[in-house]
Formats: sequence, C-alpha cells, structure tokens
Amino acid sequence: MRIVVVGKESPVYVEAAAGAELRFVDSLDDASDLFGEMEAVIGRVPPPVLAKAPKLRWVHSPSAGVDADLTPEMLASPVVLTSSAGNGGISLAEHSLLLMLMLNRDVPRWMRAQAEHRWDHFLHSELAGLTVGIYGLGNSGIDLALKAKAFHMRVLGVRRRPEQPSPNVDELCSLDRLLAESDFVVVTAPRTPSTAGVFDRDAFARMKPSAYFICISRGGIADDDALLEALRTGQIAGAGLDAHGVEPLPPESPFWSLPNVIVTPHNGATSTGTRRRSQEIVAENLRRFVAGEPLHNIVDKSAGY
Amino acid sequence: MRIVVVGKESPVYVEAAAGAELRFVDSLDDASDLFGEMEAVIGRVPPPVLAKAPKLRWVHSPSAGVDADLTPEMLASPVVLTSSAGNGGISLAEHSLLLMLMLNRDVPRWMRAQAEHRWDHFLHSELAGLTVGIYGLGNSGIDLALKAKAFHMRVLGVRRRPEQPSPNVDELCSLDRLLAESDFVVVTAPRTPSTAGVFDRDAFARMKPSAYFICISRGGIADDDALLEALRTGQIAGAGLDAHGVEPLPPESPFWSLPNVIVTPHNGATSTGTRRRSQEIVAENLRRFVAGEPLHNIVDKSAGY
Repeated sequence: MRIVVVGKESPVYVEAAAGAELRFVDSLDDASDLFGEMEAVIGRVPPPVLAKAPKLRWVHSPSAGVDADLTPEMLASPVVLTSSAGNGGISLAEHSLLLMLMLNRDVPRWMRAQAEHRWDHFLHSELAGLTVGIYGLGNSGIDLALKAKAFHMRVLGVRRRPEQPSPNVDELCSLDRLLAESDFVVVTAPRTPSTAGVFDRDAFARMKPSAYFICISRGGIADDDALLEALRTGQIAGAGLDAHGVEPLPPESPFWSLPNVIVTPHNGATSTGTRRRSQEIVAENLRRFVAGEPLHNIVDKSAGY
Repeated sequence: MRIVVVGKESPVYVEAAAGAELRFVDSLDDASDLFGEMEAVIGRVPPPVLAKAPKLRWVHSPSAGVDADLTPEMLASPVVLTSSAGNGGISLAEHSLLLMLMLNRDVPRWMRAQAEHRWDHFLHSELAGLTVGIYGLGNSGIDLALKAKAFHMRVLGVRRRPEQPSPNVDELCSLDRLLAESDFVVVTAPRTPSTAGVFDRDAFARMKPSAYFICISRGGIADDDALLEALRTGQIAGAGLDAHGVEPLPPESPFWSLPNVIVTPHNGATSTGTRRRSQEIVAENLRRFVAGEPLHNIVDKSAGY
C-alpha cells in the first residue's frame, strides 16, 4: 500500500501506518512517479493529479476548512476526503476572545499611550452581561461558547444541524435574531456555497450600532464591500478580522487603516497546539486506513465540510 | 441619622437609606459643618477628619483594596471600615486573560504589522495546556480561575486562608511551587504588610525563563527594581502590568519601553460593570446600616483587607 505524505518525514506517521509504504515529499509534484500507484495522499490534491491517480481512495486535507480542496473534480470523484477539523478549534476560540477583549476595552488606545509613555486612564466596558452570537457551532464555535460562559456572557448560536449537541449555548436561533441581539457576532463557520456572502449589506444593517463583527474562519462569508461600508459609516462599532476575503490582505486594503478594525494575518490557529493536534489526527487516520477501519473527519462533500 | 456621601447625588442611595439624612458632597471638606454629627461616610476619611468625628461609626471605602484607607489612625479607631471588594473582580479577571492572551500570542507584533500594512504570519503559542499560578484568591482570583479552566489551563493558587472554598483551582500550593511551575504568575492579592515586596529578586529567579508575570491588583507587591532586572536579563519572558509601584507611572519609567512588557494605566477594573457593582454594594450597606443589620465587606483591619 503506497501513501504519499506532503510534509516533513515523521516517525510517528511511519509507525501509525506500519505495513504501508510512506513517501514524504515537499511537493506532490515530487511524487509524480507514484501517481499511478498511490492509494492515499496526506496533502492537497489538485485536479490534474486526481485525473492521473486511478488507485487513489483517500485524501486527507491539512486544513480544517476544505473549501480549497473541494474542486469540481474532487466533488465528482469517489475519493474519500477527510479534513483536519478540530486541529485549530481551541486556538481559534482563544483568538476570538482575544479580539473581543481588545475591541471591548480599546486596547489600541492603551498601546498608543504606552508608545508615548502616556498614562491614559479611561472608562471601558466589560464582556460580562453582553451577548455573543456564534455563527457556526463546529469545534471552534463550541469551544468559544464554553469560554464565553466563563466570561458571564449570554450565548446565541446559529447552526445548520440544530439536532447536534450545543453545550454552553443558551439558545439556538435564526440569523436575524442573532444579528439583532448580539454585541459580538463571531463567524466560525466554514466557507460553503450556503455561507458565502451571508454577511451582506442587509445583515450588517440588522446589527446593533454598538456591535462588533469578528471573523476567524474564512473570508468570503462576509461581503468585504458591505463590511467596509458598515465600518466606515458607523453602522457597526468595529471588527476583528483574522480571515479575509483576499489573502494575504494587500497593502492597499482599506481594512488595515480603519481605526475601529483589528487585523491579524489569518494567524489565529497557527499555534504549536494546532500543529500537535493536526499530527494526532493524521496519525490516527493513517492507522485506521491501513487497518481498514472507518476514517475520522470524513467530509460531507455536498455540505462542504 | 446623618450620613455623608462623597460623590454624585444618587436617588438609589437616598432610597436605600430611607429615614437617614444623606448629604452628597464633591469633597469631604465640603461637609466640615457635619463632622461632629455624621455617623457614616461613604468615601475616604483622612486622619484629621477622623479626629473631628466623635459620632462616626462606619466608613465605606470606594475601593476594593483598602491599603490607602488603613492609616494608623484608622487602624486604632473603633470605626467599622467596609470595602467595595467584589466590585471589580470580574473586570480584573477579564483584564488578566487579556494580558495573558496578548503576551502569549505577541499581539504587539501584529499591531506593528497592521500599522505598516504588513502581513506578518508567525507561529505562536496557545494558553491551553499551560499553567497559571494565581497569587491571591479573592473575587478576581476566583473569577480568573473559572476563566482559566475554560481555557483548558492548569490552575495553581496561593491563598492566606486555604480553608475557604477555591472553586476551579486545581491545587493550592506554596509560593515556591507556584513560581517554579507557572507559565503565568498573576498577582491578584491586596497590598498588605504580608504581601508587600513578596515578588523580589529571589522570587523572579525561581520563575521559568519562559514565564510571564502579571500584576492586576496593586503595585508594591513586586519590587520594581527586581522586576526590571528580571525583564531586562531575560530571567522571565515578559510582563503585563496594570498596577504599578508608582502611579501614575512617570514618563521616564523604563517599564513603558521594554519590548516584553505591556503597560496599562491601572485601568483593568475601570469598567461600567465595576461602577454598577460598586453602587449596588454601597446601596445594600446603606440599607443595612439604617436598619441596624450587619454590614457586608467588613475589613479585617489586622489582615489589611
């Protein structure tokens, strides 16, 4: 059984896949001699390679969100796609709370004062008693709910599968209600055909003028032009953006310099913890694949995650 | 019954103290005609006024920490001193988490990059799995423990009264162990004769070089010279300081410009929520005083809080 792993040589993977032949490569192109034989790839498989891999049965994406993996060819193929969902949830929930606290207390004001050695004491708000509305209750959304309750917040949630357990969410509700009642709207959903563009001009108009918009999962779920307009006109109070419509965010993007926006470079989940959990997920799926057991994190291709 | 309130006219206080005569003043000096008659003061009472107030039975401090109220004269006086303890606990616990997240993820680096429209993507850490050691388990320490558990951290605590309940604290331990094992040492204790100067050169030497020191309660619990030395020599990784040995921190203080220090201007508890809770504490104690019931938040003058 031949498996190609895009990434550094890993004794843990070799051990997990004992009995199979693993080839570690920097780029999938370096394994072109194996395309006809490989049964699994840990890494992203572009359509031209998919077409040349008749024995391929399994592809594991290095990402939690698989919007970039779900090409039309992958959608049409019988290959099983698994994701790294769950690798970055904790790290992204931490990042959400960081952005919420920074916006709620106006941290940029303190940092300007520190740069100028200035004692700038002011009255600010606190998260306790406010409402966070979480759009998407996957791993990061659920962990954010846990944290928000420890911050004495009310938690609203919107999710596609309300029958799934949603611990620490006070109420599942409609998007309209979430927009109308939340002090922080946090987007944790994957980008799929049904989430793309959901946060449009109309959605921002339904938010409170005192509310903040935070996106930690994927750009494109918000319409950037509508978001910019809402931020510039004061329709909403501000934003914390880790995921962006265009990445890297180009130097000329107006988001960088809006005074009510905190920009981080799609970096919320780039933690040592995320790396460790990613490796654990891959190792466990390698073990299962070789043993013929059902894989974890199988992507529902029609749902997009 | 005459009561002097230093602060704005408050119908809530008038109602709570129904039957008593309340005088609202901007400064206690404005009530000098009442010194001989007043039985209670909501505000700070300096020794010269204490000496002129023979009927005074109760003083309520506007602060949670009463180190500034506990003059030798107040210590020797039979007057009951109550504090506003609990007003800022939630707000300070939020501030602790904010500083912990900012240090753990190197937020200043992202903010410099944002100012320069630069996409600066880097690997950082996450709080999950790390250990926070809380020095002092009053209102802010206990609320911080709750939040730290929701961040999947291990929580160590040092407290003077181990027999009191310490929910969400994994282990109470000695200061030595807290210093040796914590990734974040957070000072939430009041400044008292037994806490002043506890964090000295020896204490910082016992911390891990990768650990951060955070102080959100009072300056003077750390020896600033020793802290500066530990920060400059890399004996510890950095610090988040809301409370300082000298306040306001003078422009020439070296703390402002150390690259591994985040300075906020004793501002962690200055929130709308803290103000609301302060008023609730005062109103309840006014009601109790007029009704002859035992007061809340009575300060143990010998313990200093």
